[in-house]
Amino acid sequence: MHMSPISVAVAGASGYAGGEVLRLLLGHPEVQIGALTAGANAGETLGSLQPHLVPLADRVLEDTTVEVLSGHDVVFLALPHGQSAQYAAALGEDVVIIDCGADYRLTDPGVWEKFYGTPHAGSWPYGLPELPGQRAQLTGARRIAVPGCYPTVSSLALAPAVVAGLVDTSDIVVVAASGTSGAGKAAKPHLLGSEVMGSMTAYGVGGVHRHGPEIVQNLGTLTDQPVKVSFTPLLAPMPRGILATCTAPVAEGVTLEDLRTAYLKAYADEPFVHLLPEGQWPATKAVHGSNSVHLQVALDEDAGRAVVIGAVDNLAKGTAGAAVQCMNLALGLPEATGLSTVGVAP
Amino acid sequence: MHMSPISVAVAGASGYAGGEVLRLLLGHPEVQIGALTAGANAGETLGSLQPHLVPLADRVLEDTTVEVLSGHDVVFLALPHGQSAQYAAALGEDVVIIDCGADYRLTDPGVWEKFYGTPHAGSWPYGLPELPGQRAQLTGARRIAVPGCYPTVSSLALAPAVVAGLVDTSDIVVVAASGTSGAGKAAKPHLLGSEVMGSMTAYGVGGVHRHGPEIVQNLGTLTDQPVKVSFTPLLAPMPRGILATCTAPVAEGVTLEDLRTAYLKAYADEPFVHLLPEGQWPATKAVHGSNSVHLQVALDEDAGRAVVIGAVDNLAKGTAGAAVQCMNLALGLPEATGLSTVGVAP
Amino acid sequence: MHMSPISVAVAGASGYAGGEVLRLLLGHPEVQIGALTAGANAGETLGSLQPHLVPLADRVLEDTTVEVLSGHDVVFLALPHGQSAQYAAALGEDVVIIDCGADYRLTDPGVWEKFYGTPHAGSWPYGLPELPGQRAQLTGARRIAVPGCYPTVSSLALAPAVVAGLVDTSDIVVVAASGTSGAGKAAKPHLLGSEVMGSMTAYGVGGVHRHGPEIVQNLGTLTDQPVKVSFTPLLAPMPRGILATCTAPVAEGVTLEDLRTAYLKAYADEPFVHLLPEGQWPATKAVHGSNSVHLQVALDEDAGRAVVIGAVDNLAKGTAGAAVQCMNLALGLPEATGLSTVGVAP
Amino acid sequence: MHMSPISVAVAGASGYAGGEVLRLLLGHPEVQIGALTAGANAGETLGSLQPHLVPLADRVLEDTTVEVLSGHDVVFLALPHGQSAQYAAALGEDVVIIDCGADYRLTDPGVWEKFYGTPHAGSWPYGLPELPGQRAQLTGARRIAVPGCYPTVSSLALAPAVVAGLVDTSDIVVVAASGTSGAGKAAKPHLLGSEVMGSMTAYGVGGVHRHGPEIVQNLGTLTDQPVKVSFTPLLAPMPRGILATCTAPVAEGVTLEDLRTAYLKAYADEPFVHLLPEGQWPATKAVHGSNSVHLQVALDEDAGRAVVIGAVDNLAKGTAGAAVQCMNLALGLPEATGLSTVGVAP
Repeated sequence: MHMSPISVAVAGASGYAGGEVLRLLLGHPEVQIGALTAGANAGETLGSLQPHLVPLADRVLEDTTVEVLSGHDVVFLALPHGQSAQYAAALGEDVVIIDCGADYRLTDPGVWEKFYGTPHAGSWPYGLPELPGQRAQLTGARRIAVPGCYPTVSSLALAPAVVAGLVDTSDIVVVAASGTSGAGKAAKPHLLGSEVMGSMTAYGVGGVHRHGPEIVQNLGTLTDQPVKVSFTPLLAPMPRGILATCTAPVAEGVTLEDLRTAYLKAYADEPFVHLLPEGQWPATKAVHGSNSVHLQVALDEDAGRAVVIGAVDNLAKGTAGAAVQCMNLALGLPEATGLSTVGVAP
Repeated sequence: MHMSPISVAVAGASGYAGGEVLRLLLGHPEVQIGALTAGANAGETLGSLQPHLVPLADRVLEDTTVEVLSGHDVVFLALPHGQSAQYAAALGEDVVIIDCGADYRLTDPGVWEKFYGTPHAGSWPYGLPELPGQRAQLTGARRIAVPGCYPTVSSLALAPAVVAGLVDTSDIVVVAASGTSGAGKAAKPHLLGSEVMGSMTAYGVGGVHRHGPEIVQNLGTLTDQPVKVSFTPLLAPMPRGILATCTAPVAEGVTLEDLRTAYLKAYADEPFVHLLPEGQWPATKAVHGSNSVHLQVALDEDAGRAVVIGAVDNLAKGTAGAAVQCMNLALGLPEATGLSTVGVAP
Repeated sequence: MHMSPISVAVAGASGYAGGEVLRLLLGHPEVQIGALTAGANAGETLGSLQPHLVPLADRVLEDTTVEVLSGHDVVFLALPHGQSAQYAAALGEDVVIIDCGADYRLTDPGVWEKFYGTPHAGSWPYGLPELPGQRAQLTGARRIAVPGCYPTVSSLALAPAVVAGLVDTSDIVVVAASGTSGAGKAAKPHLLGSEVMGSMTAYGVGGVHRHGPEIVQNLGTLTDQPVKVSFTPLLAPMPRGILATCTAPVAEGVTLEDLRTAYLKAYADEPFVHLLPEGQWPATKAVHGSNSVHLQVALDEDAGRAVVIGAVDNLAKGTAGAAVQCMNLALGLPEATGLSTVGVAP
Repeated sequence: MHMSPISVAVAGASGYAGGEVLRLLLGHPEVQIGALTAGANAGETLGSLQPHLVPLADRVLEDTTVEVLSGHDVVFLALPHGQSAQYAAALGEDVVIIDCGADYRLTDPGVWEKFYGTPHAGSWPYGLPELPGQRAQLTGARRIAVPGCYPTVSSLALAPAVVAGLVDTSDIVVVAASGTSGAGKAAKPHLLGSEVMGSMTAYGVGGVHRHGPEIVQNLGTLTDQPVKVSFTPLLAPMPRGILATCTAPVAEGVTLEDLRTAYLKAYADEPFVHLLPEGQWPATKAVHGSNSVHLQVALDEDAGRAVVIGAVDNLAKGTAGAAVQCMNLALGLPEATGLSTVGVAP
């Protein structure tokens, strides 16, 4: 346990991811919040941009520079894709850098370039400790890539069935509906309240969304079988939350009991992943603001498919909660420090 | 063309389906609205229950009885499942009966009994004129079963690919998010605004929702191949609308061009089904209150699947609009009379 | 009645007001839709911007110029404030120009300049036919200023009490909550769905909102007494609708019966203004998409105030519905042509 | 400071107020959660009713009886009105009882009986420590009445102006919009998501809402002048939050500076009441889930009225947060223990 407070800087404090990191850090007992930076909003008070962060209301945002970010124990990067490498290179190797962006998530340069269109920055330990094999990489790490929000819930929803060999990984279908904060705070007409309230739509259909290959990569670490995922993201009329419907053909003879047993076993010791009691289905409201992932599994015998429903808060466990959880692991703090399983409902 | 007004009764006028039938009938130039009936709400004014139906505000709801429903040219039944047969039997054979409920949708008694748990009432012409082969059955019919809301959009989203043999019908996955009005007006805690606003959830997962076999039945009329559908319904935080994500493996060599061509051809002459221009995705808001179905198709080459997104207003084209469309066909009126392709947005 | 179709142009067809004008015109039996213009969106299809307007999906927006707008019987202007005068001057005097913007609403140049900060363009007949004295000015008019959305509902909610001398007009308080479409389609961060869903806020507080003096002006036409209005607009998490709470001290001895009698009498012959039955309160959903205003009145005896609640669809009767109603009056068509009292609910 | 954990029971744990008390207690470092009781839901698990309260998911609700509630240091009552007296009488005088219901809020039996229609149970120290004079009554108290949600925000929004003599208390108007959770979890048709989403309505208009006299009572403790309040509650399409618009005539010569000074001074030492910087308006989202009240004040010179906007989370500071704050005061704990000023946004 650290005796002195951990000093933390947040780059991109004006956005949704940065704001959520700060919301969680304000409840973290070991942290002292240092520099807060922004791009176009530099010079403004945080209170004018994030009025819910009352204790930091008078803090003035600084420009995002290496100089400003230097001198902290931990730096959270909540920046547009492609900007992380410059800070990673310039900040000391001892500084814990937690990147909420995509830059270091994908291991395959070819896949990166296909989906992001820019040179590959590299890959860092992947901040999903509940995915088999990942936690050990994160403990004591100094560079961590926070997973995408869709891959978090989709991977956790599918992993136990994949690990246990209960499903055919070559024919997975994921349809996941996200709240609008997943699209960020940049003002675009199709994200106006007038457009999104009372409406559902799809986007990134047909295998073009950048989180698709990330799901494939995650599941690929769990099996030697080929992994194919048809991933369709939906935009739902709510500010937060993802509800993912994940389905795969079951192997011959697999029963619902087999599936539930695999999930119960896989997550028995995970504080943040909850398989709900039979008959109860995940709702995003139940995980609102929390670090929880709620799961439920069904077997469609006629269609021969397992169907797993997962709910996560895209900003919390889907981004900032994972980031804080990873910070805890990096620093050797208890993994759940400053994080809660309790949602804000209704 | 009828010279005198068509007299119409609506049974179940206090509910959402009945209310929407009335909303549309108020704009229908050939119709005179006769008896309005209800169950527990009999004796109340329509205005106290459906304040948006201003011209009928002072009408008092009567008990739903054969006597009250008699003497009309057309009777719309918007009743709980299982109640239609008694009226169908007692009303004259010349009366056009349009059943918004499920009683006469399924042709296979075994499937009916498996999913509904009651004796099969029989089957009537199926009120989805855009499904190949159905329109002829509806023209001049005196008994019509209005399709379920999910089957309407799912079937229309998949039919062209199935008919053209472009997809493998044995491995279809449909995930469809519905607004809450699809669950009806009965007050249940999980449908409270406090619960549903800002939240998404799933229900009827694992092949148990009653609309699943209806989708299978519809697609089965289009192909000799086996049809299997994994159907998952979601509850979305909006009052109206369904967004359906429908995906199936494509046959070897099928291109996006093949898919688009099939859809353009299939619906070229359909006034209510619109394949959107490439790059534009259906949104439920664009069909709000209209009789339109909006479709878009994509090809996920890595996953080897076609993905079709469909949007419909569950109460309009998904129920009441189809009902009025069927009435028009039954009576020999122009099919689109009193119906609009124009949504109420934003 | 015109024998040939009325040709209509809409300037500002890409915005919410212009879109709603088009939605209504598509259901108007006497109209032929001519030129559609836009600013930054010129060159795009209407379908890409207003996907709910299916019959016009392929129409390409033109630049807003006098030349393009010329040659129509009617021109609707749905433009930012300050742009109307140039078209009014250049288009012929016989052309009916209906301005959905504010430019010609206020009669007092000093008030205009105080609230809008630009030179006063003048004033046109005020398009609120239900306000005593206005309908006659609109019949056959060639220039009409469509009222603001808040003034429409607030003025109609207060007018009968003012005319009957039942309230003290020097101490009126109006608090009115609007859906977000009232703020237009320009992408601003505070109007993002992520910000507005699940949240209420206030804006333009303290007598600075431009619709305040318009309410004062309207009520001032009805009484010789001084008129003071404390007007506070709220932003509500819904795309459409205004709910206005309008309260004023009652004169000595005024009873609820007196109030109801005044309202019933005032609106007995108005097709679009509905005093609800006692015990029933206006809801914006009931007027969604319609040209109706729903009102209810109460008397708070302890506080000595009449409280009138009014609901209107800000885009329909609050803007585009009024515009079409005024066009009908201008052209001598039946006033309700193409307009409906029926809302789209739930 | 207590050395051993404080044992706490919650009666009414299945409802929204009870659930929010539990959410906060789960984050309170000094508390051990004991008996959880319910009415009709007794026998069910908390997880099936409040799935967001993960750590308590397996707890089974007991019947609400004196026996079950006995033996705790603190008992929170979150029961329907009229049920508190029986538990207050039977539980020991040393037990801290915090009543989230209305039973002990009003001091005047005649006012109670007029608005609630039942015999007056009495009055307890009023749990609004920020109201001048109240905190001292709460410190060490063993019986506390938690204020109503509307009175909390309205009283705090008006108190500084009243105390400073800046406004005329005989002509106050409050219009306050609440999220639907304020109406509780009982399933009623008008509270269905289908009805409330996208809609605003009013209720309890004309001085009949029970929170009106509570506001009058609170302000009456601050002035010798007569207090009259016209209070209109609105139902807004959001699950949580109240936005209150509070306006009163200003005394001759009062400036905006006078008003701001009064508010800054009044709340300088209050951790949970925040006067926002000039130009920034309260939004309910910024206080979502927090114990904060956000205020802003304006002066409408033309109307001669001060306008104060206040935002509160009706379930948090509006009910359960106040309840926990009062528990802290009763037990001599630091007042803010377990409470946060930080909202969950967006």
